[in-house]
Amino acid sequence: MRIICLDLEGVLVPEIWISLAKRTNINDLLLTTRDIEDYSELMDHRLKVFKKEGLKISDIHDAVNNLQPFKGAKDFIDDLSKDFQVIILSDTFYEIASPLFYKLGNPNVFCHHLDISNSGDIIGYKLRIDDQKTKAVKAFHKLGFKVYAAGDSYNDLGMLKAADKGILYCAPEALKNQYSNFENANDYETLKALLVD
Amino acid sequence: MRIICLDLEGVLVPEIWISLAKRTNINDLLLTTRDIEDYSELMDHRLKVFKKEGLKISDIHDAVNNLQPFKGAKDFIDDLSKDFQVIILSDTFYEIASPLFYKLGNPNVFCHHLDISNSGDIIGYKLRIDDQKTKAVKAFHKLGFKVYAAGDSYNDLGMLKAADKGILYCAPEALKNQYSNFENANDYETLKALLVD
Repeated sequence: MRIICLDLEGVLVPEIWISLAKRTNINDLLLTTRDIEDYSELMDHRLKVFKKEGLKISDIHDAVNNLQPFKGAKDFIDDLSKDFQVIILSDTFYEIASPLFYKLGNPNVFCHHLDISNSGDIIGYKLRIDDQKTKAVKAFHKLGFKVYAAGDSYNDLGMLKAADKGILYCAPEALKNQYSNFENANDYETLKALLVD
Repeated sequence: MRIICLDLEGVLVPEIWISLAKRTNINDLLLTTRDIEDYSELMDHRLKVFKKEGLKISDIHDAVNNLQPFKGAKDFIDDLSKDFQVIILSDTFYEIASPLFYKLGNPNVFCHHLDISNSGDIIGYKLRIDDQKTKAVKAFHKLGFKVYAAGDSYNDLGMLKAADKGILYCAPEALKNQYSNFENANDYETLKALLVD
């Protein structure tokens, strides 16, 4: 049996932080894991922007409630789930992304938690563990599964390397060029063919 | 975030082997993990009976296709999946139980594989790993999750002991008496209250 590990943002749903940046017109929030390799550095940057701009968790909820998964994303997951175990490995946070999980049919998601004050300020974040995507793939291997994985960003590279097959999905050209050993796909049909192979 | 590990047979669906025993009138197939603690001993017994009686994988499929999950089981999983990560840990086999997984909405299931010959004889089984339920709970712990678990049989005890909370669900009286340190429930409402607590 094969476990298929999928990244969330950029693969199944739009980038949440970019959507937030656009809704709030705060360009400082446009940076993602595609731009900054170090996730802690990126999150520290986001928290500083939040504080400076006075943004609260309700502002994120407004943005996320208006987001839809990519066309075909739910069917893609449902289809794969007939024959494989699909688990989403994401560096997003349960507190902000749960409306999108619901729209995907509540698949299993391993991600992180935010610290939110009683007044709705985002005061910090708790990574469940460091490098959770890579460690999850290794844990599934130890449990006797084959693991195929797909992602689009720097924070997916450990997962893709640890997997029996790693696939870059709709990744930036620079990343595809730098990691040309990974197969790549730009639509669900091609991605599915690589994942079920 | 909490992962909820659920046993399959006896908790979400009827015992597949008992159903098969009743459909085929072969009493030797009535034994389950409730009766024999050693799973390899139980499976060796079943394979011997299969060979003796000339039963094929198609006979199991006939039995499984006629089975339905317990009333409310799918809603129970769907409801828990809104707030928690639900993973079914079962010692059944993908080859025989998949029609039931479909009826449950294809949740994530960690179980085992059967060896089936081209002529449909069941010639063996491959445990993905030994003691997979216990090891899965420990792996989830290492990945930074809390784990609650529910099961009804001897082969669930390792999982229940390793979990942060272990619950016996519709378990035989002897097991409940022997392991009175575990909480127990006999309906989904009570079980849910214990799992979300």
